[in-house]
Amino acid sequence: MGLFKSKRVVYKPVKDVNLGPDSTEFYLQANVKAPRMTGILVKIVAWLLECRIIGAFLLYILKGNNLIHKYITNADIEEPPLYVPLHHFEDHKEQEVKSLDLALTPPDKVQVAIDCLPTTLQRPINGTKPSFNRWTIMDYFRAYSSGDITPHMVAERFIAAVDESSKPTLQMGFFINYNVEDILRQANESTLRYQKGEPISVLDGVPVAIKDEIDCLPYPTTGGTKWLHKQRPCTDDACCIKRLRLCGAVLVGKTNMHELGAGTSGINPHYGATRNPHNASRIAGGSSSGSAAVVSAGLCPVALGVDGGGSVRMPAALCGIVGLKPTFSRIPHSGVIPLNWTVGMVGILAGTVEDSLITYAAISGEIPSRQPSSIPAKINLPLLPLTKSISKIKLAKYGKWFDDCSDDVRICCSGALNKLQGHYGWKIVDVTIPEIEVMRLAHYSTIGSECNTSLDYFQDKNLADFGWDARVALKIYGSFSSMEYIKAQKIRNRQLQFHKKIFSEADIIVSPTTGVTAYPIQDDALKTGELDYVNGAALIRYSIAGNFLGLPAVTVPVGYDKLGLPIGLQFIGRPWAEATLIHLAFAMQTICLSEYRKPAIFYDLLRTN
Amino acid sequence: MGLFKSKRVVYKPVKDVNLGPDSTEFYLQANVKAPRMTGILVKIVAWLLECRIIGAFLLYILKGNNLIHKYITNADIEEPPLYVPLHHFEDHKEQEVKSLDLALTPPDKVQVAIDCLPTTLQRPINGTKPSFNRWTIMDYFRAYSSGDITPHMVAERFIAAVDESSKPTLQMGFFINYNVEDILRQANESTLRYQKGEPISVLDGVPVAIKDEIDCLPYPTTGGTKWLHKQRPCTDDACCIKRLRLCGAVLVGKTNMHELGAGTSGINPHYGATRNPHNASRIAGGSSSGSAAVVSAGLCPVALGVDGGGSVRMPAALCGIVGLKPTFSRIPHSGVIPLNWTVGMVGILAGTVEDSLITYAAISGEIPSRQPSSIPAKINLPLLPLTKSISKIKLAKYGKWFDDCSDDVRICCSGALNKLQGHYGWKIVDVTIPEIEVMRLAHYSTIGSECNTSLDYFQDKNLADFGWDARVALKIYGSFSSMEYIKAQKIRNRQLQFHKKIFSEADIIVSPTTGVTAYPIQDDALKTGELDYVNGAALIRYSIAGNFLGLPAVTVPVGYDKLGLPIGLQFIGRPWAEATLIHLAFAMQTICLSEYRKPAIFYDLLRTN
Repeated sequence: MGLFKSKRVVYKPVKDVNLGPDSTEFYLQANVKAPRMTGILVKIVAWLLECRIIGAFLLYILKGNNLIHKYITNADIEEPPLYVPLHHFEDHKEQEVKSLDLALTPPDKVQVAIDCLPTTLQRPINGTKPSFNRWTIMDYFRAYSSGDITPHMVAERFIAAVDESSKPTLQMGFFINYNVEDILRQANESTLRYQKGEPISVLDGVPVAIKDEIDCLPYPTTGGTKWLHKQRPCTDDACCIKRLRLCGAVLVGKTNMHELGAGTSGINPHYGATRNPHNASRIAGGSSSGSAAVVSAGLCPVALGVDGGGSVRMPAALCGIVGLKPTFSRIPHSGVIPLNWTVGMVGILAGTVEDSLITYAAISGEIPSRQPSSIPAKINLPLLPLTKSISKIKLAKYGKWFDDCSDDVRICCSGALNKLQGHYGWKIVDVTIPEIEVMRLAHYSTIGSECNTSLDYFQDKNLADFGWDARVALKIYGSFSSMEYIKAQKIRNRQLQFHKKIFSEADIIVSPTTGVTAYPIQDDALKTGELDYVNGAALIRYSIAGNFLGLPAVTVPVGYDKLGLPIGLQFIGRPWAEATLIHLAFAMQTICLSEYRKPAIFYDLLRTN
Repeated sequence: MGLFKSKRVVYKPVKDVNLGPDSTEFYLQANVKAPRMTGILVKIVAWLLECRIIGAFLLYILKGNNLIHKYITNADIEEPPLYVPLHHFEDHKEQEVKSLDLALTPPDKVQVAIDCLPTTLQRPINGTKPSFNRWTIMDYFRAYSSGDITPHMVAERFIAAVDESSKPTLQMGFFINYNVEDILRQANESTLRYQKGEPISVLDGVPVAIKDEIDCLPYPTTGGTKWLHKQRPCTDDACCIKRLRLCGAVLVGKTNMHELGAGTSGINPHYGATRNPHNASRIAGGSSSGSAAVVSAGLCPVALGVDGGGSVRMPAALCGIVGLKPTFSRIPHSGVIPLNWTVGMVGILAGTVEDSLITYAAISGEIPSRQPSSIPAKINLPLLPLTKSISKIKLAKYGKWFDDCSDDVRICCSGALNKLQGHYGWKIVDVTIPEIEVMRLAHYSTIGSECNTSLDYFQDKNLADFGWDARVALKIYGSFSSMEYIKAQKIRNRQLQFHKKIFSEADIIVSPTTGVTAYPIQDDALKTGELDYVNGAALIRYSIAGNFLGLPAVTVPVGYDKLGLPIGLQFIGRPWAEATLIHLAFAMQTICLSEYRKPAIFYDLLRTN
């Protein structure tokens, strides 16, 4: 390669390019290096190109000479590819919603969400006392407001808990980075605000953890690697982080993740495996493994993740918490490592549905200048709980797919769905969603191709800096031809049409969130990482439509397998219909409330003693 | 390859797939063939994959075993890839327009266009008599209506002319197929209608030729090849052809084209080179070579072509006629060989701007069920001529690009633009359009990748059936990686933003249509075809934005080079602003009218003797 390597072209961001007559932009004249050829010469060239080895070599020279390598193949281009799964808004008239105006400030948005919460304390529908109640954002706010507990106390307890969880006996692998001074500084500022009686919002002083794929000062953004942050310094907060700060949230550090998001186990050879708080010998799932685990372990009521192939929903399900992936582009992506352009989205991991709603309100909505004209500048929030009497929600279920999971998952999810249906009288529509496994392959070809393209911008990568399983993944990612990528987009078109048709007959598609529960972390995997595409495929089985088609989806915990490992149920919604999803998740949570169990590793930051 | 080749998967069209519970769609369980690996095993796999030859082989097996080859790489998928350059409609309030309702029948649409034509006969602005006047659709209609000439007479003259043009002494290479009986049958039916005083529209009895890339019964659709029609039989008219038939047009055959549209010369090794009516030793340009040449030679007032990379505008300019490529998706694409999905469009070749307008009205507008909701169901047609007093059109010109052509082209186009500006007082805005040559490379990577994917659907292709230059082109087309395709889409995003910015300051971008005029056909090229990427790049220099960004564009003849070869000027417009384009083209035509010359090869089908 070195022989022909030309100097790398780095394109200026579009906004910095002068289009006026005084522009210094260089006019590049066509410099075609291919002599006119006819007759026997054309034949010889054709024959040579058709030889496998010589042909590949000739094509390489031809593309190089004609500047394709310089200006396309090896160039750095900041702009995303033109086409993303951005849906036009079609008003399906979601029921019992409140409108959120995008022009509001984040604290005002949070206030609108608060107004959507149920006025009475939540009780399980069977009337029994919940066996285990997670502290919610509102619990933090009430505790801080009463003065019994301060953000500073919570920060100190948080730091002590993380310290403990990192000890050799536990090695939970929650965080890649957290800065004690920075956490205490934020907590102290918040404490002062409460002392003055001027909290910014209910999120003031609430600890929130961030997946290490999202820019958040003062931390580098490693993407789970040992090198990426050196080539892509973090110079500003991501847009969603700025909004959380504006609400007064205390950002408590960068959570562990699968290296480059290129796997689902959350076993990271550089920063350790993230362990499942319900059973520390098991995976937390990935790639937003740390964000799911810290919420599960009670260290934060909410955390942010990124979901490019179920990466928020899978670990949420495996750790027994709520995971919400909104419609593509609902949350601004700026400040997130662009590991792909058409499938990934910031998502929310939360202990309860209410907290996912509050966080959703705080961070969602494109920046006004980037808001697509085809989507209204209003976001629907659900008025919880949904009034039973007026709602007629139809749930689509594809039986063969729903049942393609372990016995425990199937029994638990079917049972939960039956209870939901029994209580609300909602209709289940039996449907067939064709080619689901093909969609997984097409999604894999797409995310792989995009990740390979995205990493091409980082030069001088040293293979030795990568974990072994990431090395294997990257080789496969780099093997796709343009034909494979284009055909994958054709599959995407088919699936979009299938799903549109299904959504014309049902409001929601329901499925388990994962095909298996958290599997064991084997010792030999800790250093090299592991390749386990069989378990990987079972984990990701139900996640793809959310990413490949940009549909919103939520997972809510509905029970446990025989070993006590959590199981999640997934709702997939129409584009922009997050309110309906959250409504359903809340209804499901209410039904399961009495069965929730406390994780084995759990820190109670609001304890009164 | 044969060793691992699995049986080819052919996906059913989406509309035929049953999504109900009784569906026979097979539920494919994940069948991941990759053992769990950790430790030294992962390392070995990574090392092997990183070896160039062994790695490629292993990846091939891995993708094959895991069904990617079966369900993606080698599968036949009818649906286009999801993303196309479809623009949201933004109302820029085009001036002096009439609305065309998409729900109207084609004859009614034509009537609306007629109402847009100038009421008085067109005169050159300098008042002199035109040296050469082409017969227009209205001339045909008036001649037929008066009874002096019948469609039958025109059909016979047409057939005689095509015969003569095909003789060994001329070998103009206009048509790939034309059927004397079919032409006479249509003409006779039209003659009867005129005799009864019931012509369907002004297009009744008017001869129209069709590029052999568009389905038109009773002809096969060869795409300029010897084999494609055998694998893809033509079973119905394309949508645009149906509309022309509904207007009574006489479809006179399938015109010659560059093989697979994969070149710009129009030299086809199977069906002969299309020769330029202005100078039969010169190329007509391509790939819609025959359609441009027959209009230029007077055989039809209009013909249809397909423009994927200037393929309508380039031959129109080289043959001294008008070429109109509407906004992406303005004309339904169904029934056109899908050689690509995101750059190609049916376009109109016409002797005059008026006739391009009438034909545009007849065939444009998506089928209602496919009409995107973001585009209104109205099309603007221009009220010709534009009233000088109220119009303030701004034209953007990028000097370095405008001037990057032969001296003759530059002098002629600058002169024409000056006259236009002088007469109407329109403002020229000097701008810089960065990275135009990069856009050409990115477009080439895109159309090449898509064409390679599209041709993959035709199995059992025999290399010997291809021309030599097409064989070379296809090898290059097949060489692009998914990364190159994705980066090309990133370039596309940049260019779209550049052009949006320019269109916020100007209504139109003006440029020459081609960088050179028609170059000589060399004898040695006739059998093998020729590879002439240098002339090709000069021909295509100004065409790319129309295809890559889906913008509408029109070319209008403005003069001749020293050898008497025609030169075209191009206007590129905002999405959906075809009316403004046609307005300008008409103004330009009026200015140049007195200079138009009769081609050396010209047939006068409306002669009165």
